[in-house]
Amino acid sequence: MRALWLEDRTLSLREIDVPTPPPGEVLVRVLAAGVCNTDIELTRGYYPFAGVPGHEFVGEVDGKRVVGEINAVCNRCPACLSGRRTHCDNRTVLGIINRNGAFAEYLTLPEENLHFVPDDVPTEEAVFAEPLAAALEIQEQVRVTADDRVLVVGRGKLGTLIAQTLLLTGCQLTVVGRGDAGPPAKSFDIAVECSGNPAGFATARAALRPRGTLVMKSTYAGDLTVNASSLVVDEITLVGSRCGPFQAAIESLAGGRIRDKPLIEGIYPLEEFAEAFERARGGRKQIFTP
Amino acid sequence: MRALWLEDRTLSLREIDVPTPPPGEVLVRVLAAGVCNTDIELTRGYYPFAGVPGHEFVGEVDGKRVVGEINAVCNRCPACLSGRRTHCDNRTVLGIINRNGAFAEYLTLPEENLHFVPDDVPTEEAVFAEPLAAALEIQEQVRVTADDRVLVVGRGKLGTLIAQTLLLTGCQLTVVGRGDAGPPAKSFDIAVECSGNPAGFATARAALRPRGTLVMKSTYAGDLTVNASSLVVDEITLVGSRCGPFQAAIESLAGGRIRDKPLIEGIYPLEEFAEAFERARGGRKQIFTP
Repeated sequence: MRALWLEDRTLSLREIDVPTPPPGEVLVRVLAAGVCNTDIELTRGYYPFAGVPGHEFVGEVDGKRVVGEINAVCNRCPACLSGRRTHCDNRTVLGIINRNGAFAEYLTLPEENLHFVPDDVPTEEAVFAEPLAAALEIQEQVRVTADDRVLVVGRGKLGTLIAQTLLLTGCQLTVVGRGDAGPPAKSFDIAVECSGNPAGFATARAALRPRGTLVMKSTYAGDLTVNASSLVVDEITLVGSRCGPFQAAIESLAGGRIRDKPLIEGIYPLEEFAEAFERARGGRKQIFTP
Repeated sequence: MRALWLEDRTLSLREIDVPTPPPGEVLVRVLAAGVCNTDIELTRGYYPFAGVPGHEFVGEVDGKRVVGEINAVCNRCPACLSGRRTHCDNRTVLGIINRNGAFAEYLTLPEENLHFVPDDVPTEEAVFAEPLAAALEIQEQVRVTADDRVLVVGRGKLGTLIAQTLLLTGCQLTVVGRGDAGPPAKSFDIAVECSGNPAGFATARAALRPRGTLVMKSTYAGDLTVNASSLVVDEITLVGSRCGPFQAAIESLAGGRIRDKPLIEGIYPLEEFAEAFERARGGRKQIFTP
């Protein structure tokens, strides 16, 4: 089968064997797969992954469309047994850690990871199930109410999805991106940092009132320098936030409460990976149809 | 009256006027005042304070013993009106920000800041009401149960008070100090950093399981460098924690649930401030009796 291959920070198109699913896993034919910022980071060496990248996908199994949770877990370690499956000590992660991903004609995943896509959700919109679940993770961790003044720092794809999920709470929402005027200082109850750069973190931090909560939704290439004393004096809470609830994401899409179609820019065959990745840096969603 | 005076990072004993309480405030005769790590940090320039330092005290008003909350607030700003009085935008802080403190024969504080000391609590033990309230603040912010594995990093005065307050929850407690063997990695639900140095922060971080909570109880002289991506990937929560509930602290002392007397090392007149501060660096509590 055709597959994109990442090695030594370099992408290429290869012909590799169709994978054979191990016990408990199923073979999924990939219908569509989105390019995520994490994929771009992988090509920059964020994590030493070699193999097929790609983790946002819609596939087909036995004629039915599916999306899939990206963490394949052992169900035996303390994290799994405590209900923190996305933090499994022995996890592999689709297209990110020790598991070939979705930029290929086929992938395999544990059957327990798959969720059916309702008929009324178009395939290209269901590609967003994974980042939408990640956006919804925020509300699994932090209570957001209609009384809260909430700031989202970052106008990218994830920022836009996060903003849409937060709007459903009725909160007082402000979104700022690069180049926008800075938000007022000490004025927000909750700030969500999804710009992926330290300047965005500083913007989010400065905007929080004392005892406010800063949700960190982006990974950073390097370390972050924080004024720890000011976090203590202002009693700020920082919350790291990653993968979230898939079923809730799919239901949001099926109910029409989230509109992700405007985020899509281009649809490509795998052969045009160079252009797709180049365009992805511009911030909108590029989708492969292997 | 006699008072210690801090200016340009230098302490001296001075003769200054007995303060006249402004409307709403009362004159307190200081019976005992403890030297805190923050006082030592002030002499190192942590905050550009000039005046009388000292914020842990027991005093006397109209023949009754009192302790006092250290934040004097405006009751009008958004923080005050939202019930976050210790974060008042216009606050002065006893012996720390724009308000003369307790290393003197007299101080003034708003009447609303004072709490009576029960008869069965000795004066030198009531000196710990302020740091004990700060220790109890942790449980105002983070739910700690008997099922939680909790690590305290720091064996100083504050660490010891924190450990005592945490033990009352029935949690599985581990305390480590400098020079101790490192705690097991990824094994604790909650870690409290009160060592005041970046190595202690690193110890606390490494000991946390995914989705664990790191309570930051110490201020640091400089900035802290954190691996932000790992906080996101492991979904760690950081919680800055400062001043806490005085009444609960006094009740803990009155009920004999907290034993702080073993932390006391020396009792000094103000004149012996140089020795008291020198000894305070050793980690145990030094108390002035002005």
